[in-house]
Amino acid sequence: MRIIGEKINGTRQRVAQAIEERNADLIRDLATQQAEAGAAWLDVNAGTHRSREPDDLIWLVETIQPVVEVPLCLDSANPQALAAAIQVVERTPMINSISGEPRRLEGILPLVAEHGCPVIALAMDDKGIPETCERRMEVVRKVMEAACASGVPDGNVYLDPLAMTLAANTDSALTTLDTMRAIRREFPDAHLTMGLSNISFGLPARSYINRVFLTLALAAGLDCAILDPLDREMKAALVAAELVLGHDRHCLNYTRAYRAGLFNGPRAKASHK
Amino acid sequence: MRIIGEKINGTRQRVAQAIEERNADLIRDLATQQAEAGAAWLDVNAGTHRSREPDDLIWLVETIQPVVEVPLCLDSANPQALAAAIQVVERTPMINSISGEPRRLEGILPLVAEHGCPVIALAMDDKGIPETCERRMEVVRKVMEAACASGVPDGNVYLDPLAMTLAANTDSALTTLDTMRAIRREFPDAHLTMGLSNISFGLPARSYINRVFLTLALAAGLDCAILDPLDREMKAALVAAELVLGHDRHCLNYTRAYRAGLFNGPRAKASHK
Repeated sequence: MRIIGEKINGTRQRVAQAIEERNADLIRDLATQQAEAGAAWLDVNAGTHRSREPDDLIWLVETIQPVVEVPLCLDSANPQALAAAIQVVERTPMINSISGEPRRLEGILPLVAEHGCPVIALAMDDKGIPETCERRMEVVRKVMEAACASGVPDGNVYLDPLAMTLAANTDSALTTLDTMRAIRREFPDAHLTMGLSNISFGLPARSYINRVFLTLALAAGLDCAILDPLDREMKAALVAAELVLGHDRHCLNYTRAYRAGLFNGPRAKASHK
Repeated sequence: MRIIGEKINGTRQRVAQAIEERNADLIRDLATQQAEAGAAWLDVNAGTHRSREPDDLIWLVETIQPVVEVPLCLDSANPQALAAAIQVVERTPMINSISGEPRRLEGILPLVAEHGCPVIALAMDDKGIPETCERRMEVVRKVMEAACASGVPDGNVYLDPLAMTLAANTDSALTTLDTMRAIRREFPDAHLTMGLSNISFGLPARSYINRVFLTLALAAGLDCAILDPLDREMKAALVAAELVLGHDRHCLNYTRAYRAGLFNGPRAKASHK
């Protein structure tokens, strides 16, 4: 399981302020902490000021890349911002994201193809997020066809089946998991990624729900997740889930994480009977 | 999900001592605590003193049943102990357990049939616990045939696919989950139960593994579990898993558990962002 670190996101107030004030220290701290915690990519989202987005994204890229080796994941729906940022990126970035929306496909896919980037593709189009697995798969097929036509190999596509909050529809996780299994069958070379925490939006004690959903998503084939790599509970759940799912030969990763203290929170001790 | 409370077990030192000393208070405390925590049955295991087992089991039953309404789950491999205890039980008990071992089938199934008891059936025989799902299913079929021939309906059988520790074989959970799905397909009216904690025997920070395994087992069709109903972390994981799996209409059970403080441990607060 590879992790895309989610913390450098301009829709978060603290990060928005740091971008506005050009506070490089705060951004670099978030970058190095996430890299040290094992993120495979760092998501970089400049926020919602559309006219400033290209400049802000370039500033973020130029601020972050001198301090970490980890590649970036350029997070924008705006082809102009992505095209500008990609010029200053040193290591091939991931692009977050395309979808079935023609504007995104036409604006972003050529960039992805030209630079050989991995790309996140959302199972939604200009009509929104489909309710059912079948309709999400129609969007996925359309996006995969467009990617293929642009010369982007399946192995560079990270499909995001999308998770809506359970607060609105208690079948929402089942729909997402069904979509993941359908993608695994139909596009075995594509990757599966997801921002997990939306599943619990509006509900209390969200981490319990998020950890259960991570476990079930891993079982359904998730191989990449957008999350906070500094969230120890989430990482502990991930390491335990990989063990139970048979992905951890001789329990090596689990026992190594244990020795490194990953399970040593207050409750981990109490439960260590 | 119905819970069989596991705490009155004579293989635990504290309980063995209470049985030896006829310490009714300790046993009754364990009974009322588990009943108040929502156990649907209370497992009653008199321990390993074979010659004393019938007397000890009768004492346990007569000690427990005046203080709780919850039915008991008589836990013994010894037909004589079960036959003796069943005479003093007031509410139809569950029997724990039969298996593919002829001695158990012949000794215990007639009791189960005569008294109309639900019964736990282990996916093992006198050769031990089969390594593969296919071999466990052969045992399951043999047991289900014997139950049917004795007049025990499928709906009274709680099949336990058995979980071996991941420490010995990291495919162990996958084998158990595969067996559960095969049972669900082949015997849709039978129930699925399991003692979950064996999956993590010999490993550190066991509760992390147990909670992941509970989540995956629920997704595979588990509808009954043998566990400690006083383990709040396990119950919190269970309530969250039932929500994510679409078993909790309008999130009512989850939000009720939240309001009752189930998620209010030290970490639950920290993660409630």
